[in-house]
Amino acid sequence: MTALPSTVDMFDLRMSDKAKPLYEAVKKFIADEVEPKTEEYFKLGEGRAERWGYGEGQLELLESIKSKAKEQGLWNFFLPDAETGEGLSNLDYAYIAIELGKNPIASECLNCSAPDTGNMEVLERVGTPEQKEQWLKPLLNGEIRSAYVMTEPDVASSDAKQISCRAERDGDEYVINGEKYYASGAGDPRCKIYIVMLQTDPDGPPHKRQSQILVPADTPGVQILGPMHVFGEDDAPHGHMHIRFDNVRVPASNMLLGEGRGFEISQLRLGPGRIHHCMRSVGAAERALELMVKRGLTREAFGKPLSRLGKNPEVIAKARIEIEACRRMVLTAAKAMDELGNAEARVWVSAVKAMVPIRTCAIVDEAIQIHGATGVSQWTPLARMYASQRTLRLADGPDEVHWFVVGRAETASHEEASRDYDPKVTYYENLENSSADGIFSGP
Amino acid sequence: MTALPSTVDMFDLRMSDKAKPLYEAVKKFIADEVEPKTEEYFKLGEGRAERWGYGEGQLELLESIKSKAKEQGLWNFFLPDAETGEGLSNLDYAYIAIELGKNPIASECLNCSAPDTGNMEVLERVGTPEQKEQWLKPLLNGEIRSAYVMTEPDVASSDAKQISCRAERDGDEYVINGEKYYASGAGDPRCKIYIVMLQTDPDGPPHKRQSQILVPADTPGVQILGPMHVFGEDDAPHGHMHIRFDNVRVPASNMLLGEGRGFEISQLRLGPGRIHHCMRSVGAAERALELMVKRGLTREAFGKPLSRLGKNPEVIAKARIEIEACRRMVLTAAKAMDELGNAEARVWVSAVKAMVPIRTCAIVDEAIQIHGATGVSQWTPLARMYASQRTLRLADGPDEVHWFVVGRAETASHEEASRDYDPKVTYYENLENSSADGIFSGP
Amino acid sequence: MTALPSTVDMFDLRMSDKAKPLYEAVKKFIADEVEPKTEEYFKLGEGRAERWGYGEGQLELLESIKSKAKEQGLWNFFLPDAETGEGLSNLDYAYIAIELGKNPIASECLNCSAPDTGNMEVLERVGTPEQKEQWLKPLLNGEIRSAYVMTEPDVASSDAKQISCRAERDGDEYVINGEKYYASGAGDPRCKIYIVMLQTDPDGPPHKRQSQILVPADTPGVQILGPMHVFGEDDAPHGHMHIRFDNVRVPASNMLLGEGRGFEISQLRLGPGRIHHCMRSVGAAERALELMVKRGLTREAFGKPLSRLGKNPEVIAKARIEIEACRRMVLTAAKAMDELGNAEARVWVSAVKAMVPIRTCAIVDEAIQIHGATGVSQWTPLARMYASQRTLRLADGPDEVHWFVVGRAETASHEEASRDYDPKVTYYENLENSSADGIFSGP
Amino acid sequence: MTALPSTVDMFDLRMSDKAKPLYEAVKKFIADEVEPKTEEYFKLGEGRAERWGYGEGQLELLESIKSKAKEQGLWNFFLPDAETGEGLSNLDYAYIAIELGKNPIASECLNCSAPDTGNMEVLERVGTPEQKEQWLKPLLNGEIRSAYVMTEPDVASSDAKQISCRAERDGDEYVINGEKYYASGAGDPRCKIYIVMLQTDPDGPPHKRQSQILVPADTPGVQILGPMHVFGEDDAPHGHMHIRFDNVRVPASNMLLGEGRGFEISQLRLGPGRIHHCMRSVGAAERALELMVKRGLTREAFGKPLSRLGKNPEVIAKARIEIEACRRMVLTAAKAMDELGNAEARVWVSAVKAMVPIRTCAIVDEAIQIHGATGVSQWTPLARMYASQRTLRLADGPDEVHWFVVGRAETASHEEASRDYDPKVTYYENLENSSADGIFSGP
Repeated sequence: MTALPSTVDMFDLRMSDKAKPLYEAVKKFIADEVEPKTEEYFKLGEGRAERWGYGEGQLELLESIKSKAKEQGLWNFFLPDAETGEGLSNLDYAYIAIELGKNPIASECLNCSAPDTGNMEVLERVGTPEQKEQWLKPLLNGEIRSAYVMTEPDVASSDAKQISCRAERDGDEYVINGEKYYASGAGDPRCKIYIVMLQTDPDGPPHKRQSQILVPADTPGVQILGPMHVFGEDDAPHGHMHIRFDNVRVPASNMLLGEGRGFEISQLRLGPGRIHHCMRSVGAAERALELMVKRGLTREAFGKPLSRLGKNPEVIAKARIEIEACRRMVLTAAKAMDELGNAEARVWVSAVKAMVPIRTCAIVDEAIQIHGATGVSQWTPLARMYASQRTLRLADGPDEVHWFVVGRAETASHEEASRDYDPKVTYYENLENSSADGIFSGP
Repeated sequence: MTALPSTVDMFDLRMSDKAKPLYEAVKKFIADEVEPKTEEYFKLGEGRAERWGYGEGQLELLESIKSKAKEQGLWNFFLPDAETGEGLSNLDYAYIAIELGKNPIASECLNCSAPDTGNMEVLERVGTPEQKEQWLKPLLNGEIRSAYVMTEPDVASSDAKQISCRAERDGDEYVINGEKYYASGAGDPRCKIYIVMLQTDPDGPPHKRQSQILVPADTPGVQILGPMHVFGEDDAPHGHMHIRFDNVRVPASNMLLGEGRGFEISQLRLGPGRIHHCMRSVGAAERALELMVKRGLTREAFGKPLSRLGKNPEVIAKARIEIEACRRMVLTAAKAMDELGNAEARVWVSAVKAMVPIRTCAIVDEAIQIHGATGVSQWTPLARMYASQRTLRLADGPDEVHWFVVGRAETASHEEASRDYDPKVTYYENLENSSADGIFSGP
Repeated sequence: MTALPSTVDMFDLRMSDKAKPLYEAVKKFIADEVEPKTEEYFKLGEGRAERWGYGEGQLELLESIKSKAKEQGLWNFFLPDAETGEGLSNLDYAYIAIELGKNPIASECLNCSAPDTGNMEVLERVGTPEQKEQWLKPLLNGEIRSAYVMTEPDVASSDAKQISCRAERDGDEYVINGEKYYASGAGDPRCKIYIVMLQTDPDGPPHKRQSQILVPADTPGVQILGPMHVFGEDDAPHGHMHIRFDNVRVPASNMLLGEGRGFEISQLRLGPGRIHHCMRSVGAAERALELMVKRGLTREAFGKPLSRLGKNPEVIAKARIEIEACRRMVLTAAKAMDELGNAEARVWVSAVKAMVPIRTCAIVDEAIQIHGATGVSQWTPLARMYASQRTLRLADGPDEVHWFVVGRAETASHEEASRDYDPKVTYYENLENSSADGIFSGP
Repeated sequence: MTALPSTVDMFDLRMSDKAKPLYEAVKKFIADEVEPKTEEYFKLGEGRAERWGYGEGQLELLESIKSKAKEQGLWNFFLPDAETGEGLSNLDYAYIAIELGKNPIASECLNCSAPDTGNMEVLERVGTPEQKEQWLKPLLNGEIRSAYVMTEPDVASSDAKQISCRAERDGDEYVINGEKYYASGAGDPRCKIYIVMLQTDPDGPPHKRQSQILVPADTPGVQILGPMHVFGEDDAPHGHMHIRFDNVRVPASNMLLGEGRGFEISQLRLGPGRIHHCMRSVGAAERALELMVKRGLTREAFGKPLSRLGKNPEVIAKARIEIEACRRMVLTAAKAMDELGNAEARVWVSAVKAMVPIRTCAIVDEAIQIHGATGVSQWTPLARMYASQRTLRLADGPDEVHWFVVGRAETASHEEASRDYDPKVTYYENLENSSADGIFSGP
């Protein structure tokens, strides 16, 4: 009956009792250990010798926070329902990820930052024991970082059937050729492993043409052509890299899950990846609103604080309402994943992916406006938040694809009941018979 | 920390187990008893002798449905937490009211229609035993109907301090003079009693100037000047009446709660009244989306069903997303009333009142557009739904007032933390020191 | 290079010197003769014996105004570039039509009201001498009225190829069968002639299947099934009629222009018809803004006139800016018709048809909001203006069709230049070479 | 009668015959001399030794283009109605500036780039012969560049009364202390002179407190604290500088026009400055639409070019319509300045300043969306265009100030006519008397 299936339990959006202490611990950890070090962390990066490296003491500072987090067990909790039975539900993780979204390094401090989370999840689910030993283990330990290499400059990758970067089998190896871009995180010197979406069978059925293969960053033939910018930022040293694969050879055992199963892995990965973005977006929107109101309270023009001037109270109100709506939709989508499984919850994830970043963009934009020129400057996090949220409207499928997914599902859900639709269904008063019939008819 | 207070339990939006059978019974009753009779009900009204009356057999049909409902106990369940301990929570009622919003006579069939619900709630809470006996009892029995007479043509009643219709004490009576309009339901011949907001003390403190007084519809001096229209409809025989009070005398015992306590009663009444509107709006939006999709599936242009043409899949997706967001916000506001009480939940109610009708309007408007000319006609319920939802953006406080309430509360919630706000809070990389300082300074 | 062709002269949007005295005379006539009688005109219609007729003295009042107008030569000036060399340019007419749009009966007083204007234009251009004598002459004299019968309830008529109401040749006659609706003006007892769009050759090439045929209103078999409503209004006695043609026989000489040439006539007619609507829309928007500001100045809430409260100054500013933008676009489209001819100006007409009514709707809606409940009532013209402007978004092609026309033309205009488009066209500073190349490449 | 005064001649928006050859020459010059060198120009800047300097050969290239332009007389034509009688009208300049807005270095090549244009205009109008000799002459020759230093980080400078950077008279000198930021262009090593808005009389009447004073960039005490960013870009070597004035001493003869006349100069300067921005915005929007369509034509997804997918044709249509509306409004505002003078045209300038950048932002944003990730990258000019247009919504007065100016003027224009406004002005059919009166009145 609707694009977005629901069950009674999906209306219970409470955090579990089990997660509450963790949630409180995370909030406390961010407040006590992350926020006070954030400015220092970025300052240590200024003037560093290598743009694609770290400043003196910068990584040490980060590692010291990570160690504390790991010690306190605030680590890797993004992995829901893992084999071991450990792990948070998506719903519980949502509460935490919203908090992570308010600070730019909190995710990494708790080993919960993209794209590692998605990569670890893939390895955990479909990796061979050897693959897990070699790559999942150091990722889970926060010793290395990783990239997910999917998007291509030459085709609209939102239509994944078009992916054209090739991997050809040659004996015990795959030989990879082609170009990718926006490989986020590939700028970091700690980034050691890529999961790469590749075309292995150009003539196969559309959803069986692709595979995902592990490619170590230091494999010969991997050429970083340069960093892609995001609204003028290169986001060094994280970076979004433009990469050419030039006869890159990897062992056939680097294949994940099996040839032709690239789409399957995407489905596994993209649901969580997308909703994690949306969770953090809610946190970002919350932070933008906080800055908007604080600026409004402390800045005066024409004899009034900006928060009381003109339409500003309405702007603030709309932001608060939008955030609460987004929060509940994100929590519901997370719960849908818990209740229905990722496949059944797919349309829910598209719904929040189409809903949340665009509205967060609008809220950040209003926060910029109320800050005046300072809003677009480096003095507040707002310009960078805007760039990042705006990019999210393209990453992991542009809004248009997600709207289409939801629209198609909604339409399909009414298909049967529509057979005999006759718009003259009204039961409202109708003057036809009483007052007009016969009066004007020809004789 | 936010305009919209929340508790953990406010995230449990599930219907109670107790309410489920009732909810199912209501859905079944509407499907089996109300929907199949709705068209007949309206047809019986056509060509009736009196515009402000009912057609032959029309009321009999309605009463027969009401009797069945009462028999089955599907009656008066809008009253939450009543003295007796009976009654539904606001949250449980929300689920039911959303269903009621899909059919134009369902509310009345179950004795849950505005403005009677609000009036009964007021009488139940603050009425004297005599007032209850005389008016509440027949209302609870569905024997009479009532009106709430607040809005005035000559002042912006959204600023209730301005209300100027006077009641002056004269011995054991109040003498009422002035004009009111949009007294909804006062057109119905069954409407026997008004609750009227009146100015009793023009010089008192702003929030103590008003009182609410019971005025029987047949009191001498009550003049119905005529029906106010809503986008060209007079909504006969329900109607929205323009009334003049010309030396209308009622006994002093008709005063509700006490002189000067009109605002108090408003607060009591408006919360539920507003949220009930929003609940039904969600139902209306749901119905509009259903019609939109059905039309889209069954109408072709340029070789495609409209549901697949141009932006239409996106329009449909956005409507679904908006409805789910509104549904969850309305449920949350209802739960807030249950958990925090009406006073504490006041800003939540404003939030949904500002959010839901405007978005429902937009969805209905899109449904109209996809129906073409049929969309504005009497053949579908859409034009009337639009008129009604559009009016809701003005009734019980225009959107602007509710945005202001939320905006002011949000701002206030940050007041203390904003004292020392300095927008230069960023911890992001900053080129100032490293690359520019000193270079351009004058010698 | 663009969807909207322009010439240097199209930037000269001044009224011609020739038209100025006429324009001034029209403004004076409306102010002196029409406005003061408008209320009386409608009052005379109240309580009339027949809903689809006129009140005592009502038509006499109208005729007396029309006579004065005709005497003063303020008559029929909608016809541009007529054979005789008389007539206004589209540009000059635009200035006048904007004025007409501000009053609900001004157009008819000057014999410039739809759909007669379009029908007269068609007859003037393609009518035979006999057709002109019989129908054009009394129309030009304002003695009868007419209807244009095109839209069908059973197909999306925006895709005109789908029109299915049939006319079959039978000897010297055509036999017509099928249903039409929203035949505006067909409710008026003075309406004597219809121009009907009919399918004459279901198997012909898509654009040659239709013809337009004159059908006198009193032809046997013409059945008025009833009035279609527009947001609850039946607009009696003008009306928008639902008509069945049941073996209606008309002489073959009633064919306009020739069998299979229905589209040709549409093209001739629709351009002017659409732009005339848009001209009047600008007048309507201007009137709505005037009412909005006047209400804002004279109504207080929370201690301030509404015009200074919250976002209202911004709402007012945006309305003014929008109106001036719409005015200039409408004038330009009119000038395009003068300079380029109706065929070449076709996309310009679509552009203003897609632009103006939707923005006028928004302005009227804001004017409603600032009036509170009075805004949706019969006390101001706003609710009816909204209904009428909203309907215009569907009439003569829904917005979607016009956006599509403009979008397709814009795209086509770039087709050639796009062959070698490579998005990497930037000439902005690019860090790729300088800072990243080589650093991360595998060895 | 309206916020935006108009005369008949203001509807003649044609370029003058005099300007046509110049306009054609400019277009040809940009196509032949500027576009082909633009990429090289930026490439020469890459990897330069100093971030706030130029690459080897980069300035030489620029100078060689400038020389050609000067030779051909394509130079300094921004100055309208200059003393000598030379100069373009604002309207003629608008046509040219729209072209300049399409290329990032065209303005400078023709010595028409901000903020030099505004500064030259001020010097030309109010400078003393000595000031002109020293600063205007080299600026007119394109030998040096300049900055306009107005905005302050510590107050909302949109309310100019709040400006607090102090200049105190001390003998024959002014001593300047305080902070300014977003001094655009002050990063350029060729920038030799600032015009600085300063508070000279804190206790004077609000509009007489400020003065504008010439401050050479190399005056001791001028400290460049660093570059302000715009969405992550420092726009080196142009730059937007954060400057501290620390006991900076300039001769009293550097005062422009006279102490306390700072506002007067602002009025003189801001009108042209603002409208020049809007002219170039129209060019930018035109360029964004071109890229949007080209991308749409050459990129496929789901089996269709993007230009035909989903809502994209509508997005393209709306952009074209918006651009044509903006173009005509900008031309009208320019003509208003020509016809009415800058003072009378003030509200027109606010109207286009509030209208054009926000709509250009939206068009650029849609162009980004259709480019996918490439849209936010450095490969297209779109991300930078967005940053620049977004900033324009803050520069020279935020949108809010301009909406307020227009709204206030519109309201004022109706003040007199509103005295007796009674919303019950409708002349539409009214059922009150006929059908309801008396029926329900109490006996």
